[in-house]
Amino acid sequence: MSTNDEFDLIHRFFAPLAAGAPGARDLRDDAATLSPSDGCELIVTMDTVVAGVHYLANETSENIVAKLMGSNLSDLAAMGAKPLGFTLSCGWAADTEMPEIEAFASSMSDWINDYAFPLLGGDTVKTTDTSVFTLTAFGETPHGRSISRSGAQVGDDVYVSGTIGDGALGLLVAQGDLPELSPAYQAFLANRYRIPQPRISLGQSLVGIANACIDLSDGLIQDAGHVADTSGVRLELEWDKVPLSDATKAVLESNPDMMSSILSGGDDYELLFTAREVANLSNSDVTKIGTVVQGTPGVEVFDTQGDLVEVTETGYNHFS
Amino acid sequence: MSTNDEFDLIHRFFAPLAAGAPGARDLRDDAATLSPSDGCELIVTMDTVVAGVHYLANETSENIVAKLMGSNLSDLAAMGAKPLGFTLSCGWAADTEMPEIEAFASSMSDWINDYAFPLLGGDTVKTTDTSVFTLTAFGETPHGRSISRSGAQVGDDVYVSGTIGDGALGLLVAQGDLPELSPAYQAFLANRYRIPQPRISLGQSLVGIANACIDLSDGLIQDAGHVADTSGVRLELEWDKVPLSDATKAVLESNPDMMSSILSGGDDYELLFTAREVANLSNSDVTKIGTVVQGTPGVEVFDTQGDLVEVTETGYNHFS
Repeated sequence: MSTNDEFDLIHRFFAPLAAGAPGARDLRDDAATLSPSDGCELIVTMDTVVAGVHYLANETSENIVAKLMGSNLSDLAAMGAKPLGFTLSCGWAADTEMPEIEAFASSMSDWINDYAFPLLGGDTVKTTDTSVFTLTAFGETPHGRSISRSGAQVGDDVYVSGTIGDGALGLLVAQGDLPELSPAYQAFLANRYRIPQPRISLGQSLVGIANACIDLSDGLIQDAGHVADTSGVRLELEWDKVPLSDATKAVLESNPDMMSSILSGGDDYELLFTAREVANLSNSDVTKIGTVVQGTPGVEVFDTQGDLVEVTETGYNHFS
Repeated sequence: MSTNDEFDLIHRFFAPLAAGAPGARDLRDDAATLSPSDGCELIVTMDTVVAGVHYLANETSENIVAKLMGSNLSDLAAMGAKPLGFTLSCGWAADTEMPEIEAFASSMSDWINDYAFPLLGGDTVKTTDTSVFTLTAFGETPHGRSISRSGAQVGDDVYVSGTIGDGALGLLVAQGDLPELSPAYQAFLANRYRIPQPRISLGQSLVGIANACIDLSDGLIQDAGHVADTSGVRLELEWDKVPLSDATKAVLESNPDMMSSILSGGDDYELLFTAREVANLSNSDVTKIGTVVQGTPGVEVFDTQGDLVEVTETGYNHFS
């Protein structure tokens, strides 16, 4: 690493990632310029991933980039924003080899192209033993139209996109904890854990429809709890309405206790939103899983018999 | 640390720092909203500081915050931007104690008030052994009027603000390497190293006057080199015109070799700019130190006899 300096690294690997953004000035300045479109405001979100904390320490560059780009794009999706670009701080562990950095930039290039989401600027530093990556993501929504967590109304229905729990079970697969599961299901779940599919289109189509929205990064119960707390309402969810993938159903069949992990595990990167009327979303992959009611802010999950489900884990907390 | 979670930490220490920014939504959402003023565009810059790399490992929270806020505000100053606010990612080392976090937030509050520069959002994570802080700073300039590094013109004069070299010598003082210097001068230099004074007002007044501008974070020679390289010009500087503080003059008197450190050391956070006419800046603390000429892009420093000064260090490189 010692023969390559910060400027060389930026020129070789990162400047090409800024090609789609004139305001990035080829990463040759210390700052970038950025303007929202007429009538729009900027949406800004920032997420950090740390080796060994937010991803397994031996994870590939491709999967680290997926987690970093996916989680930030997912935050933009939850606000109903159209992605504009991002700034990136790479803190590389001292023993990082050049091919890792090259693979990192190459994976990033795929995400940039897929989401029209160019690099605008950033910083490259060396840390000691742990790699740390911070991404600040920019999107835009029509002025005053971004969706927050705090707008849930009594009488709304509660919806989620996609299937729930795959991320949590995928982490178990990645750790080798579900060896009895079929290889195809193992691969599906591990992929769901490793490669977030941020719901960008759905998020934008929820502007004007959803009263509140959040992305499921910390777990269904915990993230629904954020909506409940900030909106001052109670969310009643029905366990048998929660959409599950075939792989997750297969895990549940032999391990019924996994219900808690499914309800409280993180990394699904689906959207949870509350709305009165979703007729315009009929072709979307969304499922009604509950309702918003009056009461002490919080979340309750009921089973088919109408009994309260006891959830023993309370979701992933990045700081515990 | 284990009894306090991310949300509690944000609520107690960081939400008050967002009071001045409605778009921060009290830090209760995953994203913030931000709009430049009418006719303005956003300026975005991002800087990371790592314990033991960008500041001494035993540095106080107050000084870490000063480095973080000062270096980012200095980047905004160099673009001619008015500060708007920032997002912050705190990666705390696993052994961080709560009083450190409280002191960090308290110091940040002083900067926020002094520069009308509120917190907009961010992320809080735990790292392993090293604290890592990343700040994304937002400012604004009238549309298309921000100052870049790349606009230096042959025939421009080269100016710097303040005094040069204090940061580099201050680091030596902080490391105990200049014990023979008077205590007052030691204190002055250490303070110059530790507490950047970003040239926000000067930067804004340079819009329409400076053709190119950069802040001196990596050292006079290296940063002047960035202007030269990106502008495709040659900068000829005169050593005896370089403004020095009394403390730095005192160091030079007993250690003439320190000239190299003064020319190549970092952390001054002054502005270097090129301009044709600075009549409107007559009250400012700026000094003409050279001229922009045609030639192979680069920087040369001449002494009083007109001989080329040989500089043995090439400036601080964050990635070496």
